[in-house]
Amino acid sequence: MEKLIIIKIGGNIIDDEVKLTSFLQAFANVEGKKILVHGGGKLATRVAEAMGIQQQMIDGRRITDAETLKVVTMVYAGYINKNIVAQLQANDCAAIGITGTDGNLLQAHQRKNKEVDYGFVGDIDVVNTELLSKLLNDHLSVVIAPITHNNQGQLLNTNADTIAQEIAKAMTNLFEVHLIYSFEKAGVLKDVADEDSVIKEINPSNYIRLKEQNKIFQGMIPKLDNAFAALESGVKRIVIGNAEKLSELINGSSGTNIIHE
Amino acid sequence: MEKLIIIKIGGNIIDDEVKLTSFLQAFANVEGKKILVHGGGKLATRVAEAMGIQQQMIDGRRITDAETLKVVTMVYAGYINKNIVAQLQANDCAAIGITGTDGNLLQAHQRKNKEVDYGFVGDIDVVNTELLSKLLNDHLSVVIAPITHNNQGQLLNTNADTIAQEIAKAMTNLFEVHLIYSFEKAGVLKDVADEDSVIKEINPSNYIRLKEQNKIFQGMIPKLDNAFAALESGVKRIVIGNAEKLSELINGSSGTNIIHE
Repeated sequence: MEKLIIIKIGGNIIDDEVKLTSFLQAFANVEGKKILVHGGGKLATRVAEAMGIQQQMIDGRRITDAETLKVVTMVYAGYINKNIVAQLQANDCAAIGITGTDGNLLQAHQRKNKEVDYGFVGDIDVVNTELLSKLLNDHLSVVIAPITHNNQGQLLNTNADTIAQEIAKAMTNLFEVHLIYSFEKAGVLKDVADEDSVIKEINPSNYIRLKEQNKIFQGMIPKLDNAFAALESGVKRIVIGNAEKLSELINGSSGTNIIHE
Repeated sequence: MEKLIIIKIGGNIIDDEVKLTSFLQAFANVEGKKILVHGGGKLATRVAEAMGIQQQMIDGRRITDAETLKVVTMVYAGYINKNIVAQLQANDCAAIGITGTDGNLLQAHQRKNKEVDYGFVGDIDVVNTELLSKLLNDHLSVVIAPITHNNQGQLLNTNADTIAQEIAKAMTNLFEVHLIYSFEKAGVLKDVADEDSVIKEINPSNYIRLKEQNKIFQGMIPKLDNAFAALESGVKRIVIGNAEKLSELINGSSGTNIIHE
């Protein structure tokens, strides 16, 4: 099967103009079929503040009321998505920027939670793999902003990590999928304070051992559990590492490689 | 040649939730291949005001400084474009929302004007007809926000009427193009105060006569000159009329039809 590389870019890179430009040059140089998923929470918070729209966070998650949904739609699907696409085009990378509502790419339902009302937040039900394949086969790299919809006219705010993962899982029927989570850290660290303590490789059996021995920073456990779920669903490899070393993450010489045994 | 309908929707309709919903239902029901071009200036002005970004207009044209470019990119490409697409999807119309930077749809250059510095405003050089054809042939209706780029990473604000016209002209090589300008008036009026004074049909020779006899509202002359230029470039027909009567504009029973002799 043909290789497909899906890259999630972390918020700290989006927020740093110099790092973003250099990341996008590296992304443009990645060979073959590729998808970029981005968020942009910090910029959304700044625009909300400028507009006097109060932001409420619970356990690090944004409560998306109607006004906040407007802001994230403007910032993610408008400002960030289009600036990324313009820079990719300038680097000779034919790119198209879309959201989950475009071509019904990501159909979702509004999250119902008894304890916390997250507002207009969507959990994904269906990925339109046919649309993605068509765009990729038309030699377009697809840049995805984390807005989905319920197919009844309601836009929904959806976590960009989850979008990358759901797309990765769905595309395994058609491609050999490599999923890269790129952020500001060097990878999965044994010691969160030590950037040199990157665990180079984790497979299902040493993951159990590392967890038992408490050798993984607790904050990474949910991310890793999700990564192993993606692996079980047929994703070939997941890499977690520094966005400033994109080509090394792709060739396996940097970051943490999560692989089958 | 297959028919392609390109519709420009006016700002007053976008600004009215009820009228927009009803327009989008009518658009979803239009058969065959179709493109929707929208603006959204009033909402952009409101967001700019909420963010404390001063707007400067000269002769009804917005001066697009760097901060204003952010606002129009957020509002046109984000909020308005995605809400339109979500509503079309809800009406069983497979739609994809893009700007001129996506897939290099509309390559432009920044306007240089000795008298007025319009800022980040773009004049279109090239329309990517291949991309539009691919999307239309994949059974997607294309919804276009009026943001272009210079292919060097710079986004540019571009008039939506002009975008509709340039796309219409460029697509005549591949389709029989019908261009509909839908707005709040019933059509080209003899008397601007009388909605019943619609001129039903204008062709090149009676246009000259109507102008000589001063029977056309002056404000419409530049729009009509552009329409006749489009006609000369191979567009089959241009219709100007009320967005609330979309199906009648398409079948020719409402609005002003601008046609060859």
